[in-house]
Amino acid sequence: MTDTAKPNDIAKGLEGVVFTESKLTFIDGAQGILTHLGIPIEEWAEKSTFEEVSYALLHTKLPSAAELAQFDAELRANREVPAKLLADVAAYPRTANPMQALRTAISELGLHDAQSEDTSDEARYAISVRLIAQFSTVIAAVARALGGQAAVAPRADLTHAANFLYMLTGKEPTTEQARLFDIALVLHADHGMNASTFTAIATASTLSDMYSCVVSAIGALKGPLHGGANEAVMGMLDEIGTPDKAEAYITAKLDNKEKIMGVGHRVYKNFDPRSRVLRDYAEHVASKEGKSNYYQILETIERIVVERMGSRGIYPNVDFYSGTVYADLGIKKEYFTPIFALARISGWCASVIEYTRDNRLLRPDALYSGATNQHYVELKDRK
Amino acid sequence: MTDTAKPNDIAKGLEGVVFTESKLTFIDGAQGILTHLGIPIEEWAEKSTFEEVSYALLHTKLPSAAELAQFDAELRANREVPAKLLADVAAYPRTANPMQALRTAISELGLHDAQSEDTSDEARYAISVRLIAQFSTVIAAVARALGGQAAVAPRADLTHAANFLYMLTGKEPTTEQARLFDIALVLHADHGMNASTFTAIATASTLSDMYSCVVSAIGALKGPLHGGANEAVMGMLDEIGTPDKAEAYITAKLDNKEKIMGVGHRVYKNFDPRSRVLRDYAEHVASKEGKSNYYQILETIERIVVERMGSRGIYPNVDFYSGTVYADLGIKKEYFTPIFALARISGWCASVIEYTRDNRLLRPDALYSGATNQHYVELKDRK
Repeated sequence: MTDTAKPNDIAKGLEGVVFTESKLTFIDGAQGILTHLGIPIEEWAEKSTFEEVSYALLHTKLPSAAELAQFDAELRANREVPAKLLADVAAYPRTANPMQALRTAISELGLHDAQSEDTSDEARYAISVRLIAQFSTVIAAVARALGGQAAVAPRADLTHAANFLYMLTGKEPTTEQARLFDIALVLHADHGMNASTFTAIATASTLSDMYSCVVSAIGALKGPLHGGANEAVMGMLDEIGTPDKAEAYITAKLDNKEKIMGVGHRVYKNFDPRSRVLRDYAEHVASKEGKSNYYQILETIERIVVERMGSRGIYPNVDFYSGTVYADLGIKKEYFTPIFALARISGWCASVIEYTRDNRLLRPDALYSGATNQHYVELKDRK
Repeated sequence: MTDTAKPNDIAKGLEGVVFTESKLTFIDGAQGILTHLGIPIEEWAEKSTFEEVSYALLHTKLPSAAELAQFDAELRANREVPAKLLADVAAYPRTANPMQALRTAISELGLHDAQSEDTSDEARYAISVRLIAQFSTVIAAVARALGGQAAVAPRADLTHAANFLYMLTGKEPTTEQARLFDIALVLHADHGMNASTFTAIATASTLSDMYSCVVSAIGALKGPLHGGANEAVMGMLDEIGTPDKAEAYITAKLDNKEKIMGVGHRVYKNFDPRSRVLRDYAEHVASKEGKSNYYQILETIERIVVERMGSRGIYPNVDFYSGTVYADLGIKKEYFTPIFALARISGWCASVIEYTRDNRLLRPDALYSGATNQHYVELKDRK
């Protein structure tokens, strides 16, 4: 589009290009550090809840006890979605991809929200609270509809994490299951300027509505280079099959310089701190309940990868462990990416609200590398 | 997110940041030049059709006569959309925003397309052809549904432009009306790295599916800083009311340094070449059929703006004229942005196909400006 840039000026993937400020998330990939509001992710995972981290991201502060109670009450009060939406979701083709179904359902949710065209700061916040609450109901309804089951109505007496597992499976989870799932949501709630958050911001930068921003983000998260990674890890574990085959499988992959799913990260050149939390938790569960097949395979892969590639900054990433956690909770791998969305909705909304307070339309440039000084050739004169 | 950048390194709006190469569109904003494949937009507008420019963008070449005939036949053969989709669109709340309705309908279209999860180059192309054909049917159906009217089935014997006006209004347009609308589509088919195309690319960069890319783009185009501008111009013309009030209205706005809709452009610091084409065409129509009220108001605004602001590079832009053209075709202003999408779908698809052939995940950075070295405070210890 411009003729002034030289090819070596191209910022491919926009890597290293800083385009805005943010007070939400800090990542030091070389050191393996991730913080929200300056607080390490390990502390959030150990001490906080998804409800609290969502509040903290939206308000850029920790809530008081009263503020957290009110926020939690708002989430619980907003879990119901319109009956028309549930009926439409139930009629989706059973063959639909779950993320395409989620994209469609959330887009339709906007049609039913009388406030959806309001792009004021207050409206963006109010819509965000509803979206965080309703993502849970919509994702569970999509999973059940595509599996041929009727939706389970939300329960206001359960936490966000417990209610989701209840709506998904129809069974109330144990306290330990709900806590493990809550930790996974906390770990995935935000991660700086990842591709889906960036896509939400690109949409927001035209001052479009919240539903458009979030629908765009769902579309970006859906891609295998972003949200699809933990599903791919599970595919690999299923391919390996039993723990005794893991070493030969991974060694062959490494020898052939093939990509191993769930290993390495564009940002982290050290152990992803989220991986460590999930790994420790999985280890804790394994020590109490015995090591699952998946866990044993992961242990072997981790050992070989760290031995052979750790010195080059390549480690197992969060997707490597989260899939096992979800699978052990009985969740099918097609729903790993929707569950990623269930967590990241908080980061998307908080990032859109923060960006639009000091908005600037995103309009980068492309280097024009096509033909110049051409003229239209009449159809009859073309070869 | 990173602590190495200084605030003055922030590329706000990504302005001037070159992140990829493209062979589709060249823009020289200072000179007022716009080309596709090196051919000036004025030649495309005068000699080509929307079908041909769509082919040219998708293939990066002018078609032979046989290739164009085949492409046109494919578009005509793909105009029908699933009956289920039309039924769902007919049931949308009448109060829905047309672009939210379009976003939802196109997202649902993906659920019905058995090829939608195929992200090969060939599949992206095949889906693009269907999307270009079906955007027309879906937009007309949305407009009629929200207006309380039944959808009009497409006709395979009409051109793309004529068929759209036919489905929208239920009446076959005159040759002159169809040609004028076709020119407007040609002028809007692509415009380099605008915000909606960039959002489509951001989604595509995760290797997501075509429907996700296009749905993201619809969401971005919807924003008033992007696609909403010609609707805002019409709002201004309606506010002015009669030609005799135009001079006082605009003079007061300029004296108060208020923004005038449809004036100035982020890229063009000279007359937008697309404006000139539409302006000449509107003048031609006015000379034959008399000057409409809208046209007379525009003439006055144009004269004052060019006199007072032209020396600072601020001119009427394409949105300034396109609204009048659409209004004179009897199209309501709420549908100006969906019609922008009707044209830009070709640019979105062509850009996604081009980008994913040499794909790189988009992951820019934000400067972290929040608190550091914080710790989680137990709820009971918070103020």
